[in-house]
Amino acid sequence: MIIDCHGHYTTAPPALERWRQRQIAALSDRSMAPKTSELQISDDELRESIAKNQLQKMRERGSDLTIFSPRASFMAHHIGDFGVSSTWAAICNELCYRVSKLFPDHFIGAAMLPQSPGVDPATCIPELERCVREYGFVAVNLNPDPSGGHWTAPPLSDRHWYPLYEKMVELGVPAMIHVSTSCNPSFHTTGAHYLNADTTAFMQCLTSDLFKDFPALRFVIPHGGGAVPYHWGRFRGLAQDMKKPPLKEHLLSNVFFDTCVYHQPGIDLLTKVIPVDNILFASEMIGAVRGIDPETGHAFDDTKRYIEASALSTADRQKIYEGNARRIYPRLDAALKARGR
Amino acid sequence: MIIDCHGHYTTAPPALERWRQRQIAALSDRSMAPKTSELQISDDELRESIAKNQLQKMRERGSDLTIFSPRASFMAHHIGDFGVSSTWAAICNELCYRVSKLFPDHFIGAAMLPQSPGVDPATCIPELERCVREYGFVAVNLNPDPSGGHWTAPPLSDRHWYPLYEKMVELGVPAMIHVSTSCNPSFHTTGAHYLNADTTAFMQCLTSDLFKDFPALRFVIPHGGGAVPYHWGRFRGLAQDMKKPPLKEHLLSNVFFDTCVYHQPGIDLLTKVIPVDNILFASEMIGAVRGIDPETGHAFDDTKRYIEASALSTADRQKIYEGNARRIYPRLDAALKARGR
Repeated sequence: MIIDCHGHYTTAPPALERWRQRQIAALSDRSMAPKTSELQISDDELRESIAKNQLQKMRERGSDLTIFSPRASFMAHHIGDFGVSSTWAAICNELCYRVSKLFPDHFIGAAMLPQSPGVDPATCIPELERCVREYGFVAVNLNPDPSGGHWTAPPLSDRHWYPLYEKMVELGVPAMIHVSTSCNPSFHTTGAHYLNADTTAFMQCLTSDLFKDFPALRFVIPHGGGAVPYHWGRFRGLAQDMKKPPLKEHLLSNVFFDTCVYHQPGIDLLTKVIPVDNILFASEMIGAVRGIDPETGHAFDDTKRYIEASALSTADRQKIYEGNARRIYPRLDAALKARGR
Repeated sequence: MIIDCHGHYTTAPPALERWRQRQIAALSDRSMAPKTSELQISDDELRESIAKNQLQKMRERGSDLTIFSPRASFMAHHIGDFGVSSTWAAICNELCYRVSKLFPDHFIGAAMLPQSPGVDPATCIPELERCVREYGFVAVNLNPDPSGGHWTAPPLSDRHWYPLYEKMVELGVPAMIHVSTSCNPSFHTTGAHYLNADTTAFMQCLTSDLFKDFPALRFVIPHGGGAVPYHWGRFRGLAQDMKKPPLKEHLLSNVFFDTCVYHQPGIDLLTKVIPVDNILFASEMIGAVRGIDPETGHAFDDTKRYIEASALSTADRQKIYEGNARRIYPRLDAALKARGR
């Protein structure tokens, strides 16, 4: 089985975005805010938005199951306050849940949190619990910068985040560390902010002893780990200069990288540098890069092709495609086993 | 000849840091500010600080000439105002100039600018002109984020920066895009902020038409280009989705990457993905990573070893070591030729 650990609902019916625009327009006059019940999307609309997009590409490319979360760039935690984020997260998570019920063989949910700048992350726990316990979600997306490019939150190693980590460990769900839209004009969202956040999060882990406090906490760093594998020597050297243990011992029981790297040399570096047990197959399809690479004639984000062409043994490839995901997302493994897979 | 395009004066005599600490301590009471003349460093002290450090390692490792600029993390443009930065930049640049006079075969200067958050970059022009015309400096370090990790400046593509670019083009000096210390607790300086800035700067160029306005402007992106070469497919794809020309045509007459990547797989990827004409040898020695890699027994930042071990022809290696630098830094080439090299 091929499990894609990183897919967002980027193709939701346009009614969702219209509802959100009304919510944003009402920020200055909350009496104008749309009710949740005013968003009406039928199962047929959901089915169509998936069947002609993600599911069709999964079939074409040969992946089986996607860990599916709300559109990352639309989380926009910087907009409004906790109440605004809370309503928005609930709506987006419920849509992913409905997709997972409509296509139970192909999609399983990961939660968006109702984060808001300056607000205690513990406020996100009820939504996380609901998604895991009621919706069967197996993971969560954690935004290390709810300000959207101003980086005003404490580092991930700060006790600020600990209540959330305690709940994650209790529930047995890993977090993908994933920012949302940048509202800082310095940072292009998918070309700079996403990759910077990946590198930043890794370094926050490296400089801290977070995983001594939470040995069972697991972070997935998306987009191939940002700049990290390319600069693995730099990070090994920095850790050594700081008298930290070797990275393998210090971080690699808790930190994992996905394969959202959109060319062969990048995947070759990732699979050479990072231990195979720490790599999870992913494409972020349909996501940041949607075109065909003129150098290959195939979609940039058809990452399975790069994994297939890399110098990996069949056993290692199986770990990246399935084995690691079953280990790192125990609720995914349990859900699959419950369905006889 | 082997030219290292990225060296900072990280080993300046301790009197420099003590003077700076006095300058910072006097921020709230300018009458306490030390005079420039109170900083006394003899030629013997300068000689010793170089001969036992950078120059010794250059000889051991086999590089010949370093483009040498003030310590990047000490620029700290966020401290004080333009006056504070101006005095500090003048002092730091003069020390690099004195090093270049004491060791003219081995060091040539690159300027630090007296940038300050919110201040018009045109204010930096007199210092730049002085460094180039009086000190014979061949390049400049441009900080895209003088706020030190808060990213409050406009993108590099903004007209905000144009007066400086006009002067750079007139003088024929390229800019290394290099941030300084992060005072944002989210970003570790050398493990996150530096790499993020490299990626950010590249994406600011990609999304703009800056080099249509300045066809002769040249940027060197340090630290191997941050995350860029590892994600070259992503950047090619993003440019294509934005209807920009192919990256080679769009950016690679103006943007260059150094080789400050501290392990073999990273250098192998860089030299495979980026055209050889766009790669400049560099080590940033003595810099961010100072230890010995236990996997190789050699210094992490001895980047010449990786270039030697990479799959490059002798002609291509010569471009990376010397030819590209002579082309991209025309004042360096002229200075070398004037000395019969």
